[in-house]
Amino acid sequence: MDTRVMTRQEVEGGVTAARGFAATGIHCGVKKAKADLALVVSELPASTAALFTVNRVPAAPVLVDRALMARSPYKRALLVNSGNANACTGERGMQDAWAMVRATADALGLDVADVLISSTGVIGQFLPIEKIERGIRAAADALSSEGSADAAEAIRTTDTFAKQYALTCEIDGKTVTVGGMSKGSGMIAPNMATMLAFITTDAAVEPALLQSALVRANERSFHRISVDGDTSTNDMVAVFANGASGARRLTSSDDPGYEEFEEALEHVCVELARMIVRDGEGATKFIEITVAGAASEEEAARGARAVANSNLVKTAIHGEDANWGRILAALGNADIAFDPARVEIRLGEVVILKRNFVIDFSEEEAAAVLALPEISISADLGEGTGEATFWTCDLSARYVEINANYRT
Amino acid sequence: MDTRVMTRQEVEGGVTAARGFAATGIHCGVKKAKADLALVVSELPASTAALFTVNRVPAAPVLVDRALMARSPYKRALLVNSGNANACTGERGMQDAWAMVRATADALGLDVADVLISSTGVIGQFLPIEKIERGIRAAADALSSEGSADAAEAIRTTDTFAKQYALTCEIDGKTVTVGGMSKGSGMIAPNMATMLAFITTDAAVEPALLQSALVRANERSFHRISVDGDTSTNDMVAVFANGASGARRLTSSDDPGYEEFEEALEHVCVELARMIVRDGEGATKFIEITVAGAASEEEAARGARAVANSNLVKTAIHGEDANWGRILAALGNADIAFDPARVEIRLGEVVILKRNFVIDFSEEEAAAVLALPEISISADLGEGTGEATFWTCDLSARYVEINANYRT
Repeated sequence: MDTRVMTRQEVEGGVTAARGFAATGIHCGVKKAKADLALVVSELPASTAALFTVNRVPAAPVLVDRALMARSPYKRALLVNSGNANACTGERGMQDAWAMVRATADALGLDVADVLISSTGVIGQFLPIEKIERGIRAAADALSSEGSADAAEAIRTTDTFAKQYALTCEIDGKTVTVGGMSKGSGMIAPNMATMLAFITTDAAVEPALLQSALVRANERSFHRISVDGDTSTNDMVAVFANGASGARRLTSSDDPGYEEFEEALEHVCVELARMIVRDGEGATKFIEITVAGAASEEEAARGARAVANSNLVKTAIHGEDANWGRILAALGNADIAFDPARVEIRLGEVVILKRNFVIDFSEEEAAAVLALPEISISADLGEGTGEATFWTCDLSARYVEINANYRT
Repeated sequence: MDTRVMTRQEVEGGVTAARGFAATGIHCGVKKAKADLALVVSELPASTAALFTVNRVPAAPVLVDRALMARSPYKRALLVNSGNANACTGERGMQDAWAMVRATADALGLDVADVLISSTGVIGQFLPIEKIERGIRAAADALSSEGSADAAEAIRTTDTFAKQYALTCEIDGKTVTVGGMSKGSGMIAPNMATMLAFITTDAAVEPALLQSALVRANERSFHRISVDGDTSTNDMVAVFANGASGARRLTSSDDPGYEEFEEALEHVCVELARMIVRDGEGATKFIEITVAGAASEEEAARGARAVANSNLVKTAIHGEDANWGRILAALGNADIAFDPARVEIRLGEVVILKRNFVIDFSEEEAAAVLALPEISISADLGEGTGEATFWTCDLSARYVEINANYRT
């Protein structure tokens, strides 16, 4: 029995579930009427780790955050606006991003190095910076230890629902909470829908160790989802650890409790990532793809990603067809080592391809699996012990409509 | 003035346009009623170069061809069946593929090493090998120096039209002909639509030199088209050079006339490749993407490919929207070096993004370009002199319908 798992428990809330965090979400006027400004504040300086888009066209807030992280890995505040991504906005975009940082620091009595910011929404347009500055002052007055839902609401763009998740776990006998919020649902224009995720925890973790935990968790969660395979100019994942739980400070991966923290962080990231896929544009089916028996975890992940990004697999699932050939061909495109004759592919529990290309499954059983709203595809390559899971959604005519006719 | 270009002239026909080649296309019974077997034969042993799919799940004929090419780079006959890809068919598939080779050699009085074969169609099913063997004998009797159209017809699967192209050029004062046929139109199941192209020429070229000319031509043609980004288990491109023109034998890339031959081969490959894109499933628009000003041709090609494979760009063009943001973000995902502020993007002649993110184009002019059935997108990165062109089509709701509902 895995006792570590037993200590994890889902709880209500998101970024304010952990002790010592307050948040809010308000309307400041970037959008016409909906909430568009989220503020998250930690009572104590929080060790902070962050990952940013690898797109060559990073938005201004990403550039500013990189500079802020270089100044200090301890943060007190996170400000996010939705409705405008402040991307492809040149010099003025940079000035506006710095103005957001300054306004946040001023409103909360902090140093600029204590702040991170993020923007999501349309690109190529300047921010209404005065509205945001006024909004920041209003948000600072509205902070609440129960504000997580409002914050999650305020970072939405094309998301059809707000996304938050939290759990508690035990680190060396103390209860620690990890919670977060995310947004993202594919693309809608003239925006590129950004994937954002912000996690707070009252665990105490050294910044460098927190960064490595985030890299690992991100690799197994946000990096393993895909709606349409594109990454945006503003993608960002950050975690803030303020130590308010009183649990022992984790300084090394050998510390008792570190493994539990690492798994709890991964768990929260996976839940937040899965919510993004569930909200995929035009999606009618949620698809979990597991590749096992690969030469390494990295090869398994590469294979699962290739299947998840295949338009042919995604349309076949949309059409509820047990097309093992498209799955096998997608694996064949993944540049990983395997012998096709040793591959076994399952849809749910139905083995649709046995070794040596033997096909003898019941079409009815496969049809029953394919009719479900959540479908698991698993492939065993028969090469080694590497395993990885990837999440995606089907490709529907509705996706095309949303992305072709967004202006009308 | 580029006098080399002046010597090239489009002519009628395809694989039998060059001297010394005969071909035919017949119905042998793999398909219900349509032509499904093509045979191309050279009077003289032809230097042969071939490229095969890099998919990890190569079909039986690909494995057999690799062995045949290793035995001899001189070929006399090419046999292709459509309707069944002989892919994922294990040992029996290999036996069937070798049986096709033997039957072709026997019917024509050749050695097995003189033959290449290819199959395209559904996967995971065994070939009706007796029908094919009978068909090969019938095809051998039906060969004609005017049979190219029949051959091009017989290699079709989901293609909505047969694809062939030919041209003449001058090598050192002699007229040389290069012609070919291709097939492919995206995917339809349970097939994976294979991309095939076969080129014949009466130029005389050493096999190794022919292979390097084919690698270069393929890189700039078939490797630069995409309908849905997937490659199949059966993809193959081959060129047969039988020397029947009497033109001097090309043995080195420094030989007079080699450059002209190389460009003529590339020209034929580009035309055959563009026909495949025009036939893209559900396509309503043909899109030519040129990336210029890149650090290298390789980086330009990577950028153009990223734009061509972006579902977001393809749906935006389908919806006739001048969405420079999606184009720029796709370039940003290509892992190539550029400064976003220096990028200029054109739709046809309309500059939709100027340097420093300046947007001041006429929406009406852009709309006029986007309403056309053929659309060119060009991006200048402002980094260097690397340039590459890629061809694709838009992504329509019809594509999803074809690929989701192919069984009904």
